Amino acid sequence: MKAARLHDYAEGKLRLDEVPTPTVSGPHDVVVKVGGAGVCRTDLHVIEQVWRETLNPELPYTIGHENAGWVAEVGPAVSTVGVGDPVILHPLVTCGVCPGCRRGEDMYCGNSAFPGLNADGGYAEYVKTNERALVPLAEGLAPHEVAPFADAGITAYRAVKKAAKLLTPGTRCVVVGAGGLGHIAVQCLKALCATEVVVVDTSPEALKLAGDIGADRLIDAAEDPVAAVRALNDDVGVEAVIDFVGEHGTTDQGPAMLAQGGTYYVVGYGGRVDLAALQVIFSEINVVGNLVGNYTELAELMALAAAGKVHLHTQTYSLDQANEALDDLAAGRVRGRAVLVP
Amino acid sequence: MKAARLHDYAEGKLRLDEVPTPTVSGPHDVVVKVGGAGVCRTDLHVIEQVWRETLNPELPYTIGHENAGWVAEVGPAVSTVGVGDPVILHPLVTCGVCPGCRRGEDMYCGNSAFPGLNADGGYAEYVKTNERALVPLAEGLAPHEVAPFADAGITAYRAVKKAAKLLTPGTRCVVVGAGGLGHIAVQCLKALCATEVVVVDTSPEALKLAGDIGADRLIDAAEDPVAAVRALNDDVGVEAVIDFVGEHGTTDQGPAMLAQGGTYYVVGYGGRVDLAALQVIFSEINVVGNLVGNYTELAELMALAAAGKVHLHTQTYSLDQANEALDDLAAGRVRGRAVLVP
Amino acid sequence: MKAARLHDYAEGKLRLDEVPTPTVSGPHDVVVKVGGAGVCRTDLHVIEQVWRETLNPELPYTIGHENAGWVAEVGPAVSTVGVGDPVILHPLVTCGVCPGCRRGEDMYCGNSAFPGLNADGGYAEYVKTNERALVPLAEGLAPHEVAPFADAGITAYRAVKKAAKLLTPGTRCVVVGAGGLGHIAVQCLKALCATEVVVVDTSPEALKLAGDIGADRLIDAAEDPVAAVRALNDDVGVEAVIDFVGEHGTTDQGPAMLAQGGTYYVVGYGGRVDLAALQVIFSEINVVGNLVGNYTELAELMALAAAGKVHLHTQTYSLDQANEALDDLAAGRVRGRAVLVP
Amino acid sequence: MKAARLHDYAEGKLRLDEVPTPTVSGPHDVVVKVGGAGVCRTDLHVIEQVWRETLNPELPYTIGHENAGWVAEVGPAVSTVGVGDPVILHPLVTCGVCPGCRRGEDMYCGNSAFPGLNADGGYAEYVKTNERALVPLAEGLAPHEVAPFADAGITAYRAVKKAAKLLTPGTRCVVVGAGGLGHIAVQCLKALCATEVVVVDTSPEALKLAGDIGADRLIDAAEDPVAAVRALNDDVGVEAVIDFVGEHGTTDQGPAMLAQGGTYYVVGYGGRVDLAALQVIFSEINVVGNLVGNYTELAELMALAAAGKVHLHTQTYSLDQANEALDDLAAGRVRGRAVLVP
Repeated sequence: MKAARLHDYAEGKLRLDEVPTPTVSGPHDVVVKVGGAGVCRTDLHVIEQVWRETLNPELPYTIGHENAGWVAEVGPAVSTVGVGDPVILHPLVTCGVCPGCRRGEDMYCGNSAFPGLNADGGYAEYVKTNERALVPLAEGLAPHEVAPFADAGITAYRAVKKAAKLLTPGTRCVVVGAGGLGHIAVQCLKALCATEVVVVDTSPEALKLAGDIGADRLIDAAEDPVAAVRALNDDVGVEAVIDFVGEHGTTDQGPAMLAQGGTYYVVGYGGRVDLAALQVIFSEINVVGNLVGNYTELAELMALAAAGKVHLHTQTYSLDQANEALDDLAAGRVRGRAVLVP
Repeated sequence: MKAARLHDYAEGKLRLDEVPTPTVSGPHDVVVKVGGAGVCRTDLHVIEQVWRETLNPELPYTIGHENAGWVAEVGPAVSTVGVGDPVILHPLVTCGVCPGCRRGEDMYCGNSAFPGLNADGGYAEYVKTNERALVPLAEGLAPHEVAPFADAGITAYRAVKKAAKLLTPGTRCVVVGAGGLGHIAVQCLKALCATEVVVVDTSPEALKLAGDIGADRLIDAAEDPVAAVRALNDDVGVEAVIDFVGEHGTTDQGPAMLAQGGTYYVVGYGGRVDLAALQVIFSEINVVGNLVGNYTELAELMALAAAGKVHLHTQTYSLDQANEALDDLAAGRVRGRAVLVP
Repeated sequence: MKAARLHDYAEGKLRLDEVPTPTVSGPHDVVVKVGGAGVCRTDLHVIEQVWRETLNPELPYTIGHENAGWVAEVGPAVSTVGVGDPVILHPLVTCGVCPGCRRGEDMYCGNSAFPGLNADGGYAEYVKTNERALVPLAEGLAPHEVAPFADAGITAYRAVKKAAKLLTPGTRCVVVGAGGLGHIAVQCLKALCATEVVVVDTSPEALKLAGDIGADRLIDAAEDPVAAVRALNDDVGVEAVIDFVGEHGTTDQGPAMLAQGGTYYVVGYGGRVDLAALQVIFSEINVVGNLVGNYTELAELMALAAAGKVHLHTQTYSLDQANEALDDLAAGRVRGRAVLVP
Repeated sequence: MKAARLHDYAEGKLRLDEVPTPTVSGPHDVVVKVGGAGVCRTDLHVIEQVWRETLNPELPYTIGHENAGWVAEVGPAVSTVGVGDPVILHPLVTCGVCPGCRRGEDMYCGNSAFPGLNADGGYAEYVKTNERALVPLAEGLAPHEVAPFADAGITAYRAVKKAAKLLTPGTRCVVVGAGGLGHIAVQCLKALCATEVVVVDTSPEALKLAGDIGADRLIDAAEDPVAAVRALNDDVGVEAVIDFVGEHGTTDQGPAMLAQGGTYYVVGYGGRVDLAALQVIFSEINVVGNLVGNYTELAELMALAAAGKVHLHTQTYSLDQANEALDDLAAGRVRGRAVLVP
């Protein structure tokens, strides 16, 4: 099969190789014919060696961790999917019996693989995963339309789901950063609760898009967003801030927007959350970290997508355009989310 | 009546004055004959001008914000307590109709007074509060034995109550600092859940006391407490850390003790909580601020006290020994908690 | 002022009397000029003596328990509303200091009055309540448009709010009975969560209206609704059923529609919930009773109304048409909800 | 190996047979050398044909569904236990990939087996299960001491865990029936929360034992237990009732003991829960069904046992005394819980 693989960090790009098609070995293994592989900023980071030390994958290897497609081959113990079924892949391949898996938090699995990061991923005609990773797609959802939900989508969804539990009618939630994840988050917030959604971004286009998909208020991040948010309710502040930026000052601004008892959800990173303990106590605020979502969250997000409540804008590329897609992403030329369709 | 009042910050101590006994004016006012007034480190801070700018009380005024006693006079609309009833006073006098009060979070009241901080407090024969602040004492509880629960107690209880919801059997909770509040927290943890309680302190005496009242493990804070905690379960870390110190390095140590998904409860202050956003996300940890507890939490804590599940060690002083009590506290000569008994 | 009062049960209707306008007596009393008084089936029941024994009001008295209007006079301790403010009235006048009030569950108040049931209500130019009962109306909401939310609305909202906590994307909720309350419930469900809403009713018109306001599936109650519901997902059953009928067989059908672990919310009454303990255990189902909502729930519902997410169809009558409105309601001639506008 | 098997319902007892030792076939299979097999009333019911129609096991087969022992053989994909490890067996053998398993509710598994009920169980030297069912035993816990926790234990624990979430200090919980399950429930309640535990039973010995293990109040079921419970707090009623009897009137008494907003947990069965919808609503009570607990709950219960917080009284029999043990149970001659030790 064809696969777009990283051979050499110095090369800075992928090569389109002919490699053996993966096959099942373990009883619960599943090989999926890739229908769509999301092109994510993390893919750029992999090539830029950001993750080299942490993951240390053996080169050459195939990247791509946002995958959807059709089941092509199943191990002998697989019972819940069959050949031909359309599926989206939770990004982790997990064991199901460690304490993390038992709690339903697949990301805490002590024995996981992460295809596209530390194993061969989805920039290829086929990708290997296991049964536990597969969410069947409802009728009407095509793999190439939903692939980016596999990682970007469930990260946004997980943070929103936590926040929505507290966001009763009459509250406000600020979404900092209306890019790929923020854009999904706005739609999830509108679907999961009735809070007023306030979006803060530096880009007029991003703000416009946020408004089109349901954001109730739009705030230009360039003009003292903390003051603008606090002006909404006589300086009381808001119940929740979900920060998809996590640097360039947002980690100071986010907590400063909160009402007493409010919660700051950290998703983006790069900066530091640096607060006086006195402020944490006096305002009785909470800081909540957010990883990629678990399997249940992916299944719930796909139910939202099937119901037409969350929609991704995608721009497709063929597999041999993988480097072009990455270049477009790096240069800011992708509208919505790039997806490789092998 | 007699009252120990602060006249002049420069003086650095209180004067025992003869002042008019307070009387009810509003319909829900209540005057309480003081049976015990806790002597708290915050009282030292008031005299040391730490709170001067924030609170700016008009001098002279009576300090003392941990009060219990007997109802002496009630306003015309008071229906739930009568003259002679033994009561403990929630530290805030609240309105009952603002959004904070409606949520049951008395500390968020937008129209509150805080006797002992910004109004006349309990270092006196009588103190004025309102009906909403009063928790009747069960038989067997004497005001002078429970007064410090009014502020120190419910601060510890509130943090423990939040943590206990997550602390299923098989988990561990670290209590950092086994002083006044930590000592109450250990007892509350043992009463509210079945987690293993691990206490970290620098003082061998404090650790010994913690062990006597039920702590399961004792760790000397001087010898790399993070390593000692993480050694308990093969470097997995613990589900919760409640930090009653909040300075001198504990704000770094606390989060470093956590397992993935764990929560760091901040109660003590002085230092900064300074975390890389990447760490917050990657470990998916939570930071939770804690204020003094609400009325319901005071009522629940008094139920624990009535059932013999939480006990305070107290050392009593007469009202004219107020300065002596404060001196003893400052000098570390108080075992347990000092209480003025007018 | 004018008031429509019940003088004699045998008479079977109200008389329009000239009576003294109520005035404030207690410190927190508020007199409200009525802008709208909902005409509710309970009003018919009052006249029909259904509540006579339970409530035993002294005749003559003014009925009407779904009231909204403008503040006309305030007691000396009232701080949160002023004369002229538009408000909706929580149906109970509560004390604020009993355990029920402390928990925020106004309906559990041990010292409450219920104007319109056991005290003079809102079929009049003015009605007396207290400060704790008043939710200020947002701009754009007129008293006569929202009055029925005061009781019918928050009863439906309370049940929906409980259910919505469990209704993650991919679940289903059945609403049995799409009349006044069911119709509000459908809108609240769509606002609070992303569950699929299935409405069961005998009336084609009610089903059509339910579909127009967002119900995802409509089922004719006349044709084995249990089978129709269970056919939706291969006999697995649904996660929640909210029953606004509570008689004529729905109390058997509701539990029979549930999946393992599902919950049956009882709102309507008249019948019996009669289940074998073995069924309760084997299916591990829950039965949840629902009273009228609390103050917070009324405030949240008004936030939904202000955001345009919940809308009432109303049909207005003047105060001297009170009997006509009741007759129309009894005869099924009211579309949506009748409201008296004095 | 030896196994006590049911050959013929008419025979009314088991035969001790020599049968082939089970071996692993599937990749996640595990064979366990039985160290203890609890003798449960359900075993009597199996022989009495109560479950014949529902389960229809092929005879002869080995009963026994409360099993603990040591791992004897593992399938090739097993990674979390090794030969010789002491373990307790969750009673169900589950798939791990159906929606029920994904939610962590093993009992809802759509593809499960239940050794001892519909497959060969633990009245034998060896029993076959799978990896997902196994909870490793902490040091100090012997299989024969804990086996009955595998089913009876987690049923009681699950109900208590649900209730304990609501049972803040100052509340009361009634335990109806202090037999095998009730006796575990009392200990779990004392471990998980600080509620006052009130035990109702007809047997003075059972009441005495309940008092010895921590029950706060004991009520003779023969003397109007509803009145006795309601007398505890001026007819307000209690927050929770856990009913381990579920017949002979307790399904009427339980709900009648509740305060407004209280919850009735059904565990025992035989009777009917028959309530007027009006009572359900007016008292706003909840009825909660309870099945056997899930894997996580078994792990938590074993943590309580390891910490010495829950203790079983057991009476051991050899495998060839299986019929004798069953006879003793049927005749009421077993003190605590009978356990076969092969």
